[in-house]
Amino acid sequence: MKVGIVNVTGYSGMELARLLYRHPEVELTSVTGRSAAGQKLGDSLPHLDDIDLTITEELTEAVDFVFSALPQVASAQAVAPLVRQGLKVVDISADFRLKDPENYKAWYKADHPAPELLAEAVYGLTEWYREAIACCRLVANPGCFPTSALLALGPAVRAGLITEDIIIDSKSGVSGAGRGLGLMYHYAEANENLAAYGLEGHRHLPEMTQEFAAYHPPFKPRITFVPHLVPMTRGILSTCYANLIDGKLAPGKAGEAQLMELYQEHYRNEPFVRVVSKPPQTKHTLSNNYCLVHPVVDQRTNRLVVVSVLDNLVKGAAGQAIQNMNLMAGFPETLGIDALAAYP
Amino acid sequence: MKVGIVNVTGYSGMELARLLYRHPEVELTSVTGRSAAGQKLGDSLPHLDDIDLTITEELTEAVDFVFSALPQVASAQAVAPLVRQGLKVVDISADFRLKDPENYKAWYKADHPAPELLAEAVYGLTEWYREAIACCRLVANPGCFPTSALLALGPAVRAGLITEDIIIDSKSGVSGAGRGLGLMYHYAEANENLAAYGLEGHRHLPEMTQEFAAYHPPFKPRITFVPHLVPMTRGILSTCYANLIDGKLAPGKAGEAQLMELYQEHYRNEPFVRVVSKPPQTKHTLSNNYCLVHPVVDQRTNRLVVVSVLDNLVKGAAGQAIQNMNLMAGFPETLGIDALAAYP
Amino acid sequence: MKVGIVNVTGYSGMELARLLYRHPEVELTSVTGRSAAGQKLGDSLPHLDDIDLTITEELTEAVDFVFSALPQVASAQAVAPLVRQGLKVVDISADFRLKDPENYKAWYKADHPAPELLAEAVYGLTEWYREAIACCRLVANPGCFPTSALLALGPAVRAGLITEDIIIDSKSGVSGAGRGLGLMYHYAEANENLAAYGLEGHRHLPEMTQEFAAYHPPFKPRITFVPHLVPMTRGILSTCYANLIDGKLAPGKAGEAQLMELYQEHYRNEPFVRVVSKPPQTKHTLSNNYCLVHPVVDQRTNRLVVVSVLDNLVKGAAGQAIQNMNLMAGFPETLGIDALAAYP
Amino acid sequence: MKVGIVNVTGYSGMELARLLYRHPEVELTSVTGRSAAGQKLGDSLPHLDDIDLTITEELTEAVDFVFSALPQVASAQAVAPLVRQGLKVVDISADFRLKDPENYKAWYKADHPAPELLAEAVYGLTEWYREAIACCRLVANPGCFPTSALLALGPAVRAGLITEDIIIDSKSGVSGAGRGLGLMYHYAEANENLAAYGLEGHRHLPEMTQEFAAYHPPFKPRITFVPHLVPMTRGILSTCYANLIDGKLAPGKAGEAQLMELYQEHYRNEPFVRVVSKPPQTKHTLSNNYCLVHPVVDQRTNRLVVVSVLDNLVKGAAGQAIQNMNLMAGFPETLGIDALAAYP
Repeated sequence: MKVGIVNVTGYSGMELARLLYRHPEVELTSVTGRSAAGQKLGDSLPHLDDIDLTITEELTEAVDFVFSALPQVASAQAVAPLVRQGLKVVDISADFRLKDPENYKAWYKADHPAPELLAEAVYGLTEWYREAIACCRLVANPGCFPTSALLALGPAVRAGLITEDIIIDSKSGVSGAGRGLGLMYHYAEANENLAAYGLEGHRHLPEMTQEFAAYHPPFKPRITFVPHLVPMTRGILSTCYANLIDGKLAPGKAGEAQLMELYQEHYRNEPFVRVVSKPPQTKHTLSNNYCLVHPVVDQRTNRLVVVSVLDNLVKGAAGQAIQNMNLMAGFPETLGIDALAAYP
Repeated sequence: MKVGIVNVTGYSGMELARLLYRHPEVELTSVTGRSAAGQKLGDSLPHLDDIDLTITEELTEAVDFVFSALPQVASAQAVAPLVRQGLKVVDISADFRLKDPENYKAWYKADHPAPELLAEAVYGLTEWYREAIACCRLVANPGCFPTSALLALGPAVRAGLITEDIIIDSKSGVSGAGRGLGLMYHYAEANENLAAYGLEGHRHLPEMTQEFAAYHPPFKPRITFVPHLVPMTRGILSTCYANLIDGKLAPGKAGEAQLMELYQEHYRNEPFVRVVSKPPQTKHTLSNNYCLVHPVVDQRTNRLVVVSVLDNLVKGAAGQAIQNMNLMAGFPETLGIDALAAYP
Repeated sequence: MKVGIVNVTGYSGMELARLLYRHPEVELTSVTGRSAAGQKLGDSLPHLDDIDLTITEELTEAVDFVFSALPQVASAQAVAPLVRQGLKVVDISADFRLKDPENYKAWYKADHPAPELLAEAVYGLTEWYREAIACCRLVANPGCFPTSALLALGPAVRAGLITEDIIIDSKSGVSGAGRGLGLMYHYAEANENLAAYGLEGHRHLPEMTQEFAAYHPPFKPRITFVPHLVPMTRGILSTCYANLIDGKLAPGKAGEAQLMELYQEHYRNEPFVRVVSKPPQTKHTLSNNYCLVHPVVDQRTNRLVVVSVLDNLVKGAAGQAIQNMNLMAGFPETLGIDALAAYP
Repeated sequence: MKVGIVNVTGYSGMELARLLYRHPEVELTSVTGRSAAGQKLGDSLPHLDDIDLTITEELTEAVDFVFSALPQVASAQAVAPLVRQGLKVVDISADFRLKDPENYKAWYKADHPAPELLAEAVYGLTEWYREAIACCRLVANPGCFPTSALLALGPAVRAGLITEDIIIDSKSGVSGAGRGLGLMYHYAEANENLAAYGLEGHRHLPEMTQEFAAYHPPFKPRITFVPHLVPMTRGILSTCYANLIDGKLAPGKAGEAQLMELYQEHYRNEPFVRVVSKPPQTKHTLSNNYCLVHPVVDQRTNRLVVVSVLDNLVKGAAGQAIQNMNLMAGFPETLGIDALAAYP
């Protein structure tokens, strides 16, 4: 299958190229980029020197499948004609995640460039929408924070364990902010430093709200979401807090065992989600496509706490995008993305 | 004033030495350490080479004031006879923080070595107990996490703004784990890594519970506290979540302004707590004694979110200890600890 | 081919397991470890949880090929009987690198445990000894620093460009020091810190001296080698300085072009060494098996400067070991180790 | 004394403000900045919030002393009229370091804006030019790399121990590259990464050459200088290599002792240079004004190796600038800059 990447020079784009290079059923044949157009891929991105391609402004060759790693708005503009031409597309931007164009406009301060595609676009959290993904032509790849939060609390939501009050405290490595320069991401400022941001409302919040609601109607979550910038390159850890509904779990240790069993059962057949019995570390997923989930009961307060970790550029972006491509193309779901984490 | 430090070779101890060296009213005359006893201070700790002292096993000279930076249990054992001799002591360990010896035993798995001193020991959160500290002879210096959480939520608790459900999500640099070796603190494992820990109950939890309750009776907080290990050396950021009681703040922006004003007023005369209008960064307090506090209302859910930052070795340990010493000795509170942060 | 790893719990051992898991011609069937014996591999090393093995004290199953990742002395002791049994072995320790047992004793302060194997052991710098490796049964995998230095200066030595005065200034990430705990590798001490070490003579020096001499007799290098510890997990950068012999290269830019051409030609068919025209970054080789080499002429002084980078755990240890295994087993040299670097 | 800082918003400028705030004889009364003009200092730089000043475009108040932290060319343009007005100035830029305006033009690609001041400007390596600094009105504050290299090799040069072949391999934290944004300094690219740069010739090279030559005529060094970018915020470590002239030092250990004694003697009365007997760590100087120097003999090759460390923003910039100001103003040399290092 011939594959193209739109905007290969950002972190999601280059991570797609890195992973696709090893994919046995895929040939990467076209990569685009604006400022780097005309350069050899390896001149712009030396770690991709083995891929013999020139960066172009537009997709140049006949491709069967396209990943868009453009920013929002620009991505929908680029992707819409491709979908209409009959290409299958995974869009890594936020453009097709929110189902309601008014909601999109409220959060992204722009009219949606292709609202007619919203209905058919499938939210690409593979574990939740596997069947729909397999037969669609446009996937809206989830945000990195929502992936970590939805996988963390999904089993509890679906099992009706928790009330609608949810707090998501997420911590992300700096690559999550992208490759665009900024003082907050300048090494000397970001290193040995830690800050919260987006306290007035982060764009991943409506995505989480929409999806939790869709996962277990009529659940209507009231989410407080606070992301933090952590001095590391890759990795997201989300600590998710919710109130357990009385009587759903047995008291004490028995309830913890019930909870663990419920999570284990929920994810039993998932190739990329692992329920772990000890607090997971982001480095356990460094450069691979896993999400590790660790649910516990805070016995003193009867609250559920779930910690999840993943690599924001892999399961949080390029890896999950390929997982979705595998489904859309009829390949085994894990093909090309089953590497172990590069620990330490 | 002649001052001694018990256990100078840990991070709190060496930070005390660093700061006291510049204190204009203090002469550091005795420093102890077990394995390093007999060495010149500068041989063991090259950055302290300007301090011409030899590390001894016991306090060797007549000292007027003692800091103990020993671990718990050992600290109370060392400190109790000194207090009885009439020395003034700031104990940086946890030994005199919990008022109830049963509570101490439950959390520290040991009988309290000197329960008779618990009643007179003053919890050394300077901003809350300034008067009592000034006239006591034994201060229990607060834990680093409690300092960040109590200063963050204190104004809201006292003003009766919030319900008793509190979530404290704290992130700490690795120096908070001390100088003892461990695989989790081994550079190649801790770097580019992030993890939650203490999910089964961290020892700083009962300290927070006790102090919030004492600050605004009959407030009985139900706290979930989750600390995280962040790949940086110094710094704590705590993100604190609580439910606002309806009607206490005006709706919308007006309520946010009220909240900010309440916090500003609360800390107006505090030399080391600053209420800031933008999310603070831990690096804004690197190596100095400040705590920065940033309160906001999550309008969508009517929750209070307060972010606080401090340097765990300074305001979270040695700096606050000296702040307390200044009060106990009748010096100006800020003497010797008024350096600006070493940013970047 | 059934493969075993002796001492899987160190960084070289676990990196071998990570890489071998994806090797299409290999099945990892036995892993040993002392303190972790009896544990599931994934319990001890969560990132290897997909490998369903139990750590044992000794190699338990019939294996066709063994990697030893034990420390020196212990490694030779473990490896010698295996070789005598007819197993093929790659030894990652230093035990079979130095040809002269007296030299070994001088540097490692121990009698060599198996001097009778020294003659047949092949120094495993694949690019230099490919043919011998392919038909031997015991490979002494090179040290990480020697790999970086030999590949950097090899072409110049063989072409007779430089005098025997060589300075190797190497910088290594902290994983190079291994998984053993130590204050220098304690996160809070190693982070934001940089130091030289081994100034009195590092054990990788005699290895470099022996190999440069063997590569171009009667070249007798006088090497000053200074390694440095850099606050990052993986990566080595060696900056190598030597005096150009007058008249070997044309003056000015023409000479630089000659030099570049000589290096390009030298490494034209090497799958894992790339000559680059811009200063390489260690991250360009993060988690993969490449060594990047950048030769320049310092025109002002007529010195050769060559900068090389590699991942100390891959090309500097486990990756090169598998490269050697591929040759010994008759597999394509790049099989299973051709991943791109996980940049950023 | 009323002091102004031109361009307070760069790293040298803000570090000057941080240090001057605690200087007992100085009042900081004016700070300038271009893009931040009109803002409160604490709004632009929160860690300086205690300094109650507004950033202006030009120096606004009567000041007695000026630091310029502008980039080259702009700095000389700003500084020249101030000097002519009779103000004393320390210029942190490179503008007055090179004595020869042709040399300046060759390296900085610009005509010198004020060549008439070059003769009277004193190179501000305090340890070498203390007397001239004390009575001049314009100091050219040394570059961070030259400070580390000159202090490392100065004693050997002056004692005639070494030949003119010198190699300086320097490693710098990222703050050395300044506050200007760039992909190489973007956190996700600079973290876990290491690279050499400036191989074609770094601007600090002519400065070192000029000053070694001036220190011990007719010594004419042939220096190869290679700087490296290290993933940490602050700190420089220079490893300096030179050939010992036969017969200058006794053979073996005796020669090493001689060398150490020579260095100790050379720096006996220096408040900010310490000769250390173990390899120094950059963190031993974190945020303070020390330079630590460690000289050794590589016995196998009869080479001198000297390792030096300092904080590039303090002894390498703002701290040494204040040290020079102290001399120019008649204050004790160490006033206001005698803090210990903030280790760990």
